[in-house]
Amino acid sequence: MNNLAAVVALGLIAFTCDAAAQGWRPPPPSERCPSKWGAADERGAGNHMTPANVLRAARLIKTGQTFELAHVLGPEMPVNPGRQYELHTKRSTGPFGENKRYSNEELVTSEIGQVGTQFDGFTHQAIDRLLYNCVNMDDVATRSGFTKMGVEKVGTLITRGVLIDVAGLKGVEILPIDYEITVADLEQALQKQGVGLQAGDAVLVYTGWSKHWGVDNKLYTSGCPGIGVAAAQWLIKQDPMLLGSDNWPVEIAPNPDKSLNLPVHNIALTVNGVHLLENLVLDDLAKARAYEFALVLQPLKIKGATGSTVAPTAIR
Amino acid sequence: MNNLAAVVALGLIAFTCDAAAQGWRPPPPSERCPSKWGAADERGAGNHMTPANVLRAARLIKTGQTFELAHVLGPEMPVNPGRQYELHTKRSTGPFGENKRYSNEELVTSEIGQVGTQFDGFTHQAIDRLLYNCVNMDDVATRSGFTKMGVEKVGTLITRGVLIDVAGLKGVEILPIDYEITVADLEQALQKQGVGLQAGDAVLVYTGWSKHWGVDNKLYTSGCPGIGVAAAQWLIKQDPMLLGSDNWPVEIAPNPDKSLNLPVHNIALTVNGVHLLENLVLDDLAKARAYEFALVLQPLKIKGATGSTVAPTAIR
Amino acid sequence: MNNLAAVVALGLIAFTCDAAAQGWRPPPPSERCPSKWGAADERGAGNHMTPANVLRAARLIKTGQTFELAHVLGPEMPVNPGRQYELHTKRSTGPFGENKRYSNEELVTSEIGQVGTQFDGFTHQAIDRLLYNCVNMDDVATRSGFTKMGVEKVGTLITRGVLIDVAGLKGVEILPIDYEITVADLEQALQKQGVGLQAGDAVLVYTGWSKHWGVDNKLYTSGCPGIGVAAAQWLIKQDPMLLGSDNWPVEIAPNPDKSLNLPVHNIALTVNGVHLLENLVLDDLAKARAYEFALVLQPLKIKGATGSTVAPTAIR
Amino acid sequence: MNNLAAVVALGLIAFTCDAAAQGWRPPPPSERCPSKWGAADERGAGNHMTPANVLRAARLIKTGQTFELAHVLGPEMPVNPGRQYELHTKRSTGPFGENKRYSNEELVTSEIGQVGTQFDGFTHQAIDRLLYNCVNMDDVATRSGFTKMGVEKVGTLITRGVLIDVAGLKGVEILPIDYEITVADLEQALQKQGVGLQAGDAVLVYTGWSKHWGVDNKLYTSGCPGIGVAAAQWLIKQDPMLLGSDNWPVEIAPNPDKSLNLPVHNIALTVNGVHLLENLVLDDLAKARAYEFALVLQPLKIKGATGSTVAPTAIR
Repeated sequence: MNNLAAVVALGLIAFTCDAAAQGWRPPPPSERCPSKWGAADERGAGNHMTPANVLRAARLIKTGQTFELAHVLGPEMPVNPGRQYELHTKRSTGPFGENKRYSNEELVTSEIGQVGTQFDGFTHQAIDRLLYNCVNMDDVATRSGFTKMGVEKVGTLITRGVLIDVAGLKGVEILPIDYEITVADLEQALQKQGVGLQAGDAVLVYTGWSKHWGVDNKLYTSGCPGIGVAAAQWLIKQDPMLLGSDNWPVEIAPNPDKSLNLPVHNIALTVNGVHLLENLVLDDLAKARAYEFALVLQPLKIKGATGSTVAPTAIR
Repeated sequence: MNNLAAVVALGLIAFTCDAAAQGWRPPPPSERCPSKWGAADERGAGNHMTPANVLRAARLIKTGQTFELAHVLGPEMPVNPGRQYELHTKRSTGPFGENKRYSNEELVTSEIGQVGTQFDGFTHQAIDRLLYNCVNMDDVATRSGFTKMGVEKVGTLITRGVLIDVAGLKGVEILPIDYEITVADLEQALQKQGVGLQAGDAVLVYTGWSKHWGVDNKLYTSGCPGIGVAAAQWLIKQDPMLLGSDNWPVEIAPNPDKSLNLPVHNIALTVNGVHLLENLVLDDLAKARAYEFALVLQPLKIKGATGSTVAPTAIR
Repeated sequence: MNNLAAVVALGLIAFTCDAAAQGWRPPPPSERCPSKWGAADERGAGNHMTPANVLRAARLIKTGQTFELAHVLGPEMPVNPGRQYELHTKRSTGPFGENKRYSNEELVTSEIGQVGTQFDGFTHQAIDRLLYNCVNMDDVATRSGFTKMGVEKVGTLITRGVLIDVAGLKGVEILPIDYEITVADLEQALQKQGVGLQAGDAVLVYTGWSKHWGVDNKLYTSGCPGIGVAAAQWLIKQDPMLLGSDNWPVEIAPNPDKSLNLPVHNIALTVNGVHLLENLVLDDLAKARAYEFALVLQPLKIKGATGSTVAPTAIR
Repeated sequence: MNNLAAVVALGLIAFTCDAAAQGWRPPPPSERCPSKWGAADERGAGNHMTPANVLRAARLIKTGQTFELAHVLGPEMPVNPGRQYELHTKRSTGPFGENKRYSNEELVTSEIGQVGTQFDGFTHQAIDRLLYNCVNMDDVATRSGFTKMGVEKVGTLITRGVLIDVAGLKGVEILPIDYEITVADLEQALQKQGVGLQAGDAVLVYTGWSKHWGVDNKLYTSGCPGIGVAAAQWLIKQDPMLLGSDNWPVEIAPNPDKSLNLPVHNIALTVNGVHLLENLVLDDLAKARAYEFALVLQPLKIKGATGSTVAPTAIR
């Protein structure tokens, strides 16, 4: 079968990539800019979001079954150092009118773009102060947001989603904290699942790491298994709309190459304009062997923000 | 035609309702509780969200065209008195690693459940301190959220959406600030559009009022046209999943009956467990005469919250 | 010497008090209200703040030496559970004018009335929902502060301050975490120091506990040595303006009587209208044997607040 | 009398200064750095705070009368654009213990260093990115404060305070919004009051402008009368510890020289290391003709902050 042959062939290449990946350095601006979407582009792989792509996803809805892919936002959740999440109930002082109406609301103080299950926009990360498409972050940053590539410009994303169950491939509940997922792992898992990748997909990698969420938050944020430089580069070659995982940075952390600091953030967001989707809840999808589905994701339209907490859904 | 006949018949009843509506008072707890969804129910009309309902909606996706129904969250938006929205960019102090990674984020302080385009949960409103299903708000309120009916329990809502273009019916860009939409208006608009309502629908009423958003915020929040008691009661009899509009309270404000204070909030949320969806952007839908579509809505999973800012989408 | 005789006599009484204290229960409203300052009073022992009292304090200023009694407000400080302190620098986007002016500021999110070195007002604590002078807290609480006895009404406090060095009396650097300071301890320390108490004084009790501040915050907030019911009652009989200490609740925590929860808070603030001053830095005062001084304290005028973070000073 | 002669002599010089002031430009770094307090100095005129200076002030306390010089911090107060002040009551969920203790507190979100009656530190203002003593603000700014010259390093300030009643001199309740106080005004007011300035003084200029506070906030912040370049330079030659006024920037705003933007901020804070004290309440002092007093000021010890809201006191 052609697909399998391709997978095997790519696998061989992958090991070469893995070795090469250890020496990864960001390509210079001249090699990474303008992006393949054009010099003025602010959407990156979000450009895959077209009516045709929506139809491609909608056709996968056959039973109407939905899977909630987001964690609850609450005091039990892990937050990265320097971030917070505080909710204060504001109780009413009514009653108003003869209907004796009372009204409640709540004040939230949080890095709301970067807590919980979260979607990373392109202003979140830079290489040497240059964002995606080599926009200098100092030119577009203001006290109250970024004037370019704010997450409010992304809009709803609807696309075919694919789950790659690497934990299942390895026969474990949770991958070890220092496990770097290889290209071969991805290929073998896809082969086992009988699913291939297509341009414009949302690729979600299952590690099992989210089982620590809310149970051992210190462990959860101390590091995690995930894709590294080689696997990220391979995935991005498949031309996805976004990459997601059930860990906090999508990628392995810390990176095995000690000279690199979350390099996949730079490879995906900064070099290639591919969004990241973090802290997903993928257990039910994995359990149900729901490897292919319509993914719907509605980033908040937070003007000038670097990302958005989200509550995405898989539908099949 | 049967449908039209039904509409006309209902119209006659409606005028009776209109007159009666002026004297509306909340039904006593004994008449409104337990709700039709059961005494322990926390979902109300959200119970319409079933795989069958998702399929009903998905079948309406024919071209893949999407409409964004949310306003941008930013300093230009109107916020109700006592609410705030502040975003502060947190710029990085990098670089990290040989990849010279920089990271940006932002702190947001806001009644995030009740700003922008927003979805109302059942802890938002009470009658004489009783929430939906006669839960006493004092029994379930804590400093950091509500222990029952928090918006985190709603989950993604996917359903058939119907736009009722009342501004179009009346031949105006924007309905006058004190215009109470009648049952007859709804019936005539639906008839003109050739669309009927079904159980489980998301019913969105177009008034044109959102044209003032960000242009004249003082005017926008000073009042608005919308449905009143009679139209709300008629709509709720059609058994919808939710009611929405392109104004801030879905309903007319202030209510023509001066003794009542936002009574539709109590009729929908408190008495009937029907969610409200406020501050929608419906102009493009109205312009495109997109009266029937799949509506997708992903409330944030804010634990114990009264609502959620949202970025819903119409797809057809 | 008369004074010594009195001290010894009181000491004997004290041990009786200590035993009795274990069964302390709040006096009923009929016995504690109206307070000795009158039924409408909102100032309690703050009424000691008079020109004569200021002069009494000013006369103690002989060298101009000052002691700073406050901790720095920063991320290293301990905060009680459910409280936070976050500071975000807001950097300018200038330059403005030909003078190329830049301006910086910072956003702080905090329970600013109840963090760091802090002054407790009378709305901070209640017995069975009744505040000082038996004002029902539900009658005066609003979403944005209390309509009575807010800390903005206190004003600058200038009075004679007395340090009681109990750690020094016991010959230890830090009192043990479960040490309840007795009346005899206070009397003996005062006798050793050669200082007596006067009506209107600010009485500051030195335990050494603040040496854990910023060093072992978990230990610092896990409990502390301090005065208990008996010592608090004895001190309040001396008619002070306020009671302070270098621990977080002024009093021993948890109370040795397991049925009581921070009872000195109720004895001082709720029953007697005596302010508390927490998390003081008293080491330099103790080291310098500065037992008598002018104390100056400027609570912020936070409308309707329960207290204020402060930066008090001792001057001699 | 020698003092008067000096005042008159200085007055003549002053008019020259006034004319010259219109062309003011910041002196280059080589002329303004290091400051007269030394190249490593972070305290500026705060170095006047010595025991001898405290005694100088304490000797002015003769009756014990105090004047509160701060506004209440509340929703009625004016805040400059881009700043906020929000207080949310956090009510208890007690009761705790047999004493049925309840506890209340409040969350405040605010640029707490720069709201209400406020004290400006040296990181608040820069000339061409250089702070006081030519420290580059980019070298000392972090996301959570400044590593040098934070307001926590200032400590309590106690000094002789002098009120200069310019409104009284001019025979008006409130100076006109565009009135630039001249050197002659200051000299004549001092002469009329029979009070001279001394090195280390806190000089408070009364304009009457605070009568608009809370009454017409839009007017209050739209501009104000105050000292300009010439008067500021003259005052700083007298070697004060700080300059204050009952308006929002201490100085006239906008500056009559349209090319300059709040130049006195730069002259005082950046060039000379002289603190500013804004939004004072000076009416009672003026009314009581209390022109000389002990001023006590306790800036909060907010680590790395640009300033502090304060509640200063005058005592005589």
